[in-house]
Amino acid sequence: MDLADLAARVERKTRIAVSSRDMERVLAALFASEDMWRIAELARIPLLALCAGLRALAAAGWVRWDTGLIRLTEDGERACALLGVAPAPTLDCPRCGGRGVETSLLRDVALAFHRVAADRPDAAQEFDQGHVTEETTIARVAQMWRHGDLAGKDVLVVGDDDLVSVAAALTGLPQRVTVLDVDPRITSFIGKVAKRESLRIEILSHDLRAPLPPSLARAFDAFACDPTESLPGFLLFAGRGLSALRGPGGAGYLGLTHAEASLSKWHAIQRQLVTWGAVITDLRDGFHAYVNWPYVETMRGWEHLPVRRVPGRREPWYRSALVRVELVTEAGVDLGVVEGDIFLDDEASTT
Amino acid sequence: MDLADLAARVERKTRIAVSSRDMERVLAALFASEDMWRIAELARIPLLALCAGLRALAAAGWVRWDTGLIRLTEDGERACALLGVAPAPTLDCPRCGGRGVETSLLRDVALAFHRVAADRPDAAQEFDQGHVTEETTIARVAQMWRHGDLAGKDVLVVGDDDLVSVAAALTGLPQRVTVLDVDPRITSFIGKVAKRESLRIEILSHDLRAPLPPSLARAFDAFACDPTESLPGFLLFAGRGLSALRGPGGAGYLGLTHAEASLSKWHAIQRQLVTWGAVITDLRDGFHAYVNWPYVETMRGWEHLPVRRVPGRREPWYRSALVRVELVTEAGVDLGVVEGDIFLDDEASTT
Repeated sequence: MDLADLAARVERKTRIAVSSRDMERVLAALFASEDMWRIAELARIPLLALCAGLRALAAAGWVRWDTGLIRLTEDGERACALLGVAPAPTLDCPRCGGRGVETSLLRDVALAFHRVAADRPDAAQEFDQGHVTEETTIARVAQMWRHGDLAGKDVLVVGDDDLVSVAAALTGLPQRVTVLDVDPRITSFIGKVAKRESLRIEILSHDLRAPLPPSLARAFDAFACDPTESLPGFLLFAGRGLSALRGPGGAGYLGLTHAEASLSKWHAIQRQLVTWGAVITDLRDGFHAYVNWPYVETMRGWEHLPVRRVPGRREPWYRSALVRVELVTEAGVDLGVVEGDIFLDDEASTT
Repeated sequence: MDLADLAARVERKTRIAVSSRDMERVLAALFASEDMWRIAELARIPLLALCAGLRALAAAGWVRWDTGLIRLTEDGERACALLGVAPAPTLDCPRCGGRGVETSLLRDVALAFHRVAADRPDAAQEFDQGHVTEETTIARVAQMWRHGDLAGKDVLVVGDDDLVSVAAALTGLPQRVTVLDVDPRITSFIGKVAKRESLRIEILSHDLRAPLPPSLARAFDAFACDPTESLPGFLLFAGRGLSALRGPGGAGYLGLTHAEASLSKWHAIQRQLVTWGAVITDLRDGFHAYVNWPYVETMRGWEHLPVRRVPGRREPWYRSALVRVELVTEAGVDLGVVEGDIFLDDEASTT
C-alpha cells in the first residue's frame, strides 16, 4: 500500500481529485494534532477527501480513532518514516498570524466594527453562509487599503455576510460602497447599521444567478466577495465581480478554501480567471479564519467525519486564501442568467 | 491630461503595457517618498515605465526633481485630489516584514548561513545576477519547510546566486539537494562551502538554454529558482524546473518582480504556468528583498533614471514576489534547446 494507491482509492470513492501529495499532507497533519478539526485545518485538502482518506488509512492499519482522538498507529509511523513523510511546522508569524498585514492603523475602525457586528445575523445554511472572524474582516480591509483599492475608490461587495461593506465604510476612505446580497436578513441588518452609524452604503437585494443591474456594470474600481465554492458557483461570483469593474487596473478580492476545493478546482478557477483577463497579484493562503456556523451538524460533511464533535464557535478550522486579482484587459466575462443550485458539487461539504 | 492619456504616452514610449492604474500607483508612491529608489519600490511597475512615467508627469507639470528630490508640484497635488488618488499606507507586519512567515525556529541555521555567506561572490552582470538578502533566503527556506517541500524531500535549485542550496542543506532536513548553475564562481563557491561544512550538495554546471540532463528529469519533489525576467527567460527557468518534478504534487518556488515585469507579463506567465499543469498556491508580493548589485551604474535602466543616485548596498528597493506553484497533472512542458540572449526584453532594466 503506497500513497498513490491510497490517493487513487480516495479519488474513486469521492470523485475529488486527490494526489499522493494530498495523502502526505494528511499524514503530516496527523503528526501535528489528534483533533479532527485541527487536522482538517492543517491537511488543506477537501474535507470530504480528508474523511475518506482517514478511512482509507484506517483500513490500511495506519490510523485509528477508537478513543475519539485520531492517531497514527505504530504501523502508520513506520510507514511515514519509510515514505519520508515528516511533520510540517506551523511557521505563521505570531504577530500577524501569517497574513503579513498590520492592522494597528485601523484600531478605531476595529473597535467600532466589533460594536456594530455584535448583533449580526447568524450564518444561514440556505445561502451557504459562514462568516469570517471580525479580525479577518478588518485585515481584509487593511489589505485593500494597502493595495490602493479603498481610499477614494468605488467598491462593490458581492454577498456580504462578512460585513466588509460596513468595515470599509467605517474607515471613511472609499468614495462609494455598494452591497449586493440575496438574504433579506443581511441587507436589512446592513441598512440598520448604516443608518445608525451614518454610513453611506448603497444596498441592493440581488440574486447573483441573474446578471448585475446595468447601473452596476463597469462602474467600480474594486470588488470583494467570498464565493460559494462549487466550481460554477465560484466562477459566478468572480465573473459578476469582474464585470462590475471599470476595466484594466480594476481589482477583485476573493476567498478560496482547501476544505471545499481541491487544487484541481483551484487550477480550473485560475485558468478561467486568466482567460477572463485577470492576473493574480496576491494569494495568501489561510488569510481568512471563519467563525463556526450553527449548522455544523446538518451540513453535508458531518456524516462523513470519523469523529463527530461540534467545534466551538471561535475555534477556527475553516480557512480560506485571500486572492487578489487585477484586470489587465477589459473583462471578457460572458455569463448570462444561471439556473438551479449553485452551491453543490462533489467537493462541497458545508452546504 | 488624464491618467489614461499619460499611461498611453508611456506605453508608446516604452512598449511596456501601462494602465492608468499603474500611473496612479506612481502618484501614490510620490505621496509616500521623494527618493528615487523608495518610489521605485513602492510604485510596483517596471522601472523603465516608472522613469518614462515620471518624465510624462513632469511634462504635464505635476512632478519636478530639480532639487534631486522627486516631488509632486502644487498642480500635481491638485490633480491627485481631483482624480481621487490617495497615499497608500505601508501596512507590512513589523515582525515578519509582510512575509507572514516566522523564522525563529531556524535561528541556528541563519547564524551558520550568515557565516558562510560572508565571502560569497559578487553579483555578476553577465548572468543578470542579483541576490536576495540572507534574511530573505532563510525566509524562503522556512516557507518551503512550512509547505512540506523541504523535510525528507529531493530539492533542485535552478540557478543559485541566492545560496538557497546552502541554507536548505544547513537545515539537515532535505533528503537530496542539487544545484544547477552556469557561473563557475557560484558552483565553485558552493562546492567549497559544502566541503568545509560537510553538507551533501550535488553541484552541476549547466546552461539552462539546454534541456536538463536526463538524470534530473522527473527526479525531484520541489525546485526553487529566481528567474531572469524577460518573458522567454522566465518561462525557461520555470519550465525546466517543472520538468524536473516527479509529477502531480511537485512544487516550485519562483521569484517575480514588478521592476522588470508589467502585470501583463505576469498574466502571460500565469497563463503558461496554468497551461503546463501548475496551480498557484501562494503568491506573496514583496517577499524577497535584494542586496543592491555592484553594477547599478552600467545597468540598462541607469540612463533612464530622472535622479541618478547609487543606492546603498543594503538599501533594498528591488523586491520580488514569492510564487509557489504545484503540479496538478504531469508537467506538459515542451521546451527544447533555446538559443541566444535570454535576458532581454522591453521591460528588462537591470541587465
